[in-house]
Amino acid sequence: MIRLFSFWRSLATYRVRVALNLKGLTPDDEIEVNLMKGAQRAAAYRAVNPMMALPALIDGEAPVLFESLAIIEYLDETRPDPPLLPKDARGRARVRGLAQIVACDCHPLIVPRVREYLEHELKIDEPARMEWCRHWHVQALAALELHLGSQETGRFCHGDQVTIADICLASQAAGARLFGADIAPFVNVARIVETCHRIDAFARAHPLRQPGAPAT
Amino acid sequence: MIRLFSFWRSLATYRVRVALNLKGLTPDDEIEVNLMKGAQRAAAYRAVNPMMALPALIDGEAPVLFESLAIIEYLDETRPDPPLLPKDARGRARVRGLAQIVACDCHPLIVPRVREYLEHELKIDEPARMEWCRHWHVQALAALELHLGSQETGRFCHGDQVTIADICLASQAAGARLFGADIAPFVNVARIVETCHRIDAFARAHPLRQPGAPAT
Repeated sequence: MIRLFSFWRSLATYRVRVALNLKGLTPDDEIEVNLMKGAQRAAAYRAVNPMMALPALIDGEAPVLFESLAIIEYLDETRPDPPLLPKDARGRARVRGLAQIVACDCHPLIVPRVREYLEHELKIDEPARMEWCRHWHVQALAALELHLGSQETGRFCHGDQVTIADICLASQAAGARLFGADIAPFVNVARIVETCHRIDAFARAHPLRQPGAPAT
Repeated sequence: MIRLFSFWRSLATYRVRVALNLKGLTPDDEIEVNLMKGAQRAAAYRAVNPMMALPALIDGEAPVLFESLAIIEYLDETRPDPPLLPKDARGRARVRGLAQIVACDCHPLIVPRVREYLEHELKIDEPARMEWCRHWHVQALAALELHLGSQETGRFCHGDQVTIADICLASQAAGARLFGADIAPFVNVARIVETCHRIDAFARAHPLRQPGAPAT
């Protein structure tokens, strides 16, 4: 019994959704935590995930699993087929490093609580907040593009198998779209994202394909 | 031959320094990248780490390893003694999740490039920037404290052995000190940080013990 706490727009939940799909797992229960209404700050959800962020996942019994990359590595360790990390330590380090450019260096800067702090505490107007989000996306995309120019890159970020880096790259591209950053100039990024989008496990998990998402 | 790109004040480098110490490794070469002078944006360093962030590590041969958590997991996989992650998948997920509260949810918000954007692009004054840094520290400390109230916590964040979570907790405490967030109200956090500080591998790695740090 897998329970996933999610919201259509959450980019970190998108990552976990892709991993679940790749592993052939379907949550038995998907609990919406509406980030646009601040539901992540309700006491009930804080008891689930003290960081008040999405996603959270319960695999059978408690305790709750939290933080998207930790959840994905857990899924990879407990359901190793197909593997989402290379077998060699250097390859794993590169894949984790690429994933962390997305999950540590970019995404944390554009989550709801940060955009809300910019708006309400620092009185930053909407165009400047959008530019903030766009700026950090472009910075990370530029770094990812440089990395993806290396010979270790193949059809996917690391060789020819999907890894956690591709999952994060897809979430980066979805964020770029939400915040108006064009990924086209980043040719390796754009090529790999396009390859990912053609895989059903990615396509079905996309934020804009979830219940509640706006029609595009 | 281990080469570490570092700066005294870098909290992510502090984490890697602790891991190296715990593994009994000493960098053969430590290259200063002065974050306070923007040296991380020089072309020479961008070629080392396209994200223009610290730390980066070279273990023998290229390629460069990047992102602190990816580096630490690499060190743990290639030098397994002492282990920095529990053996069970759920324990590993908890430890990685705690580490990511620090490395994903807090630290990215207070790094130099973000503080500089707040100052130069958004014209946020110094007191408000300090409050920004303090605020995100407190948010993460509150979440960590709730997690550390669980029965899985022992002498350290997860049982009685040092893990990556403790390394990150120590860096969180160092950041809190730099930015004026008091950890004393977070009693489990404060207790574990104090325990870590008494371990030589942590004490020697502390930012304020590095060359270039201000006298305290």
